[in-house]
Amino acid sequence: MANIGIIGLGIMGLPMAANLITAGHSVTGYDMKAESVSKLAEKGGVAATSIADAVAGADVVITMVPDSPQVKEVVYSTGGLLECASPGLLYIDMSSIRPDVAAEVAASCRAKGIRPLDAPVSGGEKGAIEATLSIMVGGDQSDFDAALPILSAMGKTVVYLGSSGSGQTVKAANQLIVGGTYQLVAEAIVFLEAYGVDTAAALKVLSGGLAGSRILEIKGESMLRREFAPGFRIDLHHKDMGIVTAAAREAGVVIPVGALVAQLIAALRAQGDGSLDHSALLRGVERLSGRTE
Amino acid sequence: MANIGIIGLGIMGLPMAANLITAGHSVTGYDMKAESVSKLAEKGGVAATSIADAVAGADVVITMVPDSPQVKEVVYSTGGLLECASPGLLYIDMSSIRPDVAAEVAASCRAKGIRPLDAPVSGGEKGAIEATLSIMVGGDQSDFDAALPILSAMGKTVVYLGSSGSGQTVKAANQLIVGGTYQLVAEAIVFLEAYGVDTAAALKVLSGGLAGSRILEIKGESMLRREFAPGFRIDLHHKDMGIVTAAAREAGVVIPVGALVAQLIAALRAQGDGSLDHSALLRGVERLSGRTE
Repeated sequence: MANIGIIGLGIMGLPMAANLITAGHSVTGYDMKAESVSKLAEKGGVAATSIADAVAGADVVITMVPDSPQVKEVVYSTGGLLECASPGLLYIDMSSIRPDVAAEVAASCRAKGIRPLDAPVSGGEKGAIEATLSIMVGGDQSDFDAALPILSAMGKTVVYLGSSGSGQTVKAANQLIVGGTYQLVAEAIVFLEAYGVDTAAALKVLSGGLAGSRILEIKGESMLRREFAPGFRIDLHHKDMGIVTAAAREAGVVIPVGALVAQLIAALRAQGDGSLDHSALLRGVERLSGRTE
Repeated sequence: MANIGIIGLGIMGLPMAANLITAGHSVTGYDMKAESVSKLAEKGGVAATSIADAVAGADVVITMVPDSPQVKEVVYSTGGLLECASPGLLYIDMSSIRPDVAAEVAASCRAKGIRPLDAPVSGGEKGAIEATLSIMVGGDQSDFDAALPILSAMGKTVVYLGSSGSGQTVKAANQLIVGGTYQLVAEAIVFLEAYGVDTAAALKVLSGGLAGSRILEIKGESMLRREFAPGFRIDLHHKDMGIVTAAAREAGVVIPVGALVAQLIAALRAQGDGSLDHSALLRGVERLSGRTE
């Protein structure tokens, strides 16, 4: 069993840490919010008072923070990972960040003898609690092999995808497809409602055919009921669409629908819906179509 | 068992007619191609020499033709359905056509005592052969109830959706989601390839999460292999995107992604790929990105 330091104990990080404890690991956690650290201690973890404190003595360090700047902060700051980690430490960043930042962080880690993996997840709070996350991993294959037992304590589908940054690249593609599918389902629902079709029956028949998707299956009905409590917030999806459009641009790949969806998510956020679930793209289509109360 | 006249014995109509024969119905078929009519006779059907011949003596008439003009031709022409049908006849149009044309045809039928249903399908040639089509039905509930045993001989998911035109409206929504999902998967694949990610592993992990869809599941691998034999042709999806964008416009519903996907499908057709499968939207993304050989 490993000594694991985990930094970032939010909606995702805390249940993931709990699953590592359940699997028998010794887990020391840090978060900027003292309350989150206390919750970890209640679950049998060790409360750290700083990043350095969480890293000291760890064989494995995991980060689960909001965005690229926070990862860089953990890695590069005074008292941060590069300064405090022992050589040979396995560093697994499970945040969703820019692939180029993941590659840059990985290079900095290797220069210090730290073994880096980028391992963003899909599956949300539910997947984190139930240890059924999909985990998309980039880095060295041998480091992936070493990390697999730890990652398997948090997720069900753990896949090695290629060199450092590959996990983030696939997560970016995931968010492109997810955002676009929500928009398509939203356009379909508003269209069907305008024609007075039985939408519940329509979603059933759509789900049964080539239009079927996980989103239609698990979110179609709550969209019909206009239930937009997150779930996954528009603000975070906006961040992710920024990542995928920038990464596509960097690679010279043209993604017209991805770019449009990024704009539609940006519009929703600009209109004050950033804290709603991403299925609230339905509200955007209603507003565009003048179909709001 | 019913006396059924079927008009349109193409890739879809012929196997659907065969399933009606298997279910014990007496089936008389007509198609502009004599060869298709002969094939029906080989399967135990009766060869008709005209629309009037297929309609005469029928309790039920089914049409399965390419587009709105062909349906209007069958219904309104001299020797057509309105002229030759007996009052009380059940007329089921299973073609994919404009919802407003479906409603117009339905009104004309009712004026003559004919009971109309619009019942377009999803599931392709495979679904037609295996009698596993999804069938989306609009019209009067009582006519739907009367038609259900017949429709069930051709499909697995048979759903009543509302008044005349509702089946076509849901089919239009289906094609919006399907076209858009192909485009999203295409953008994701080209993006992942540009970054040198293991795309087969990536599609596996994407399928397992919120990005999962029937299209990713059954078409992802053939897209990676650039296999674009139809399946469902770009030309036909182009027709369907014309239907959904016109119907949305008519209802005052704004569908930005649907409209963009319609343009991207139109581009593929303009570039000479109209006879390829709709998954060939991948070629469009490659061309836009200058990634063609």
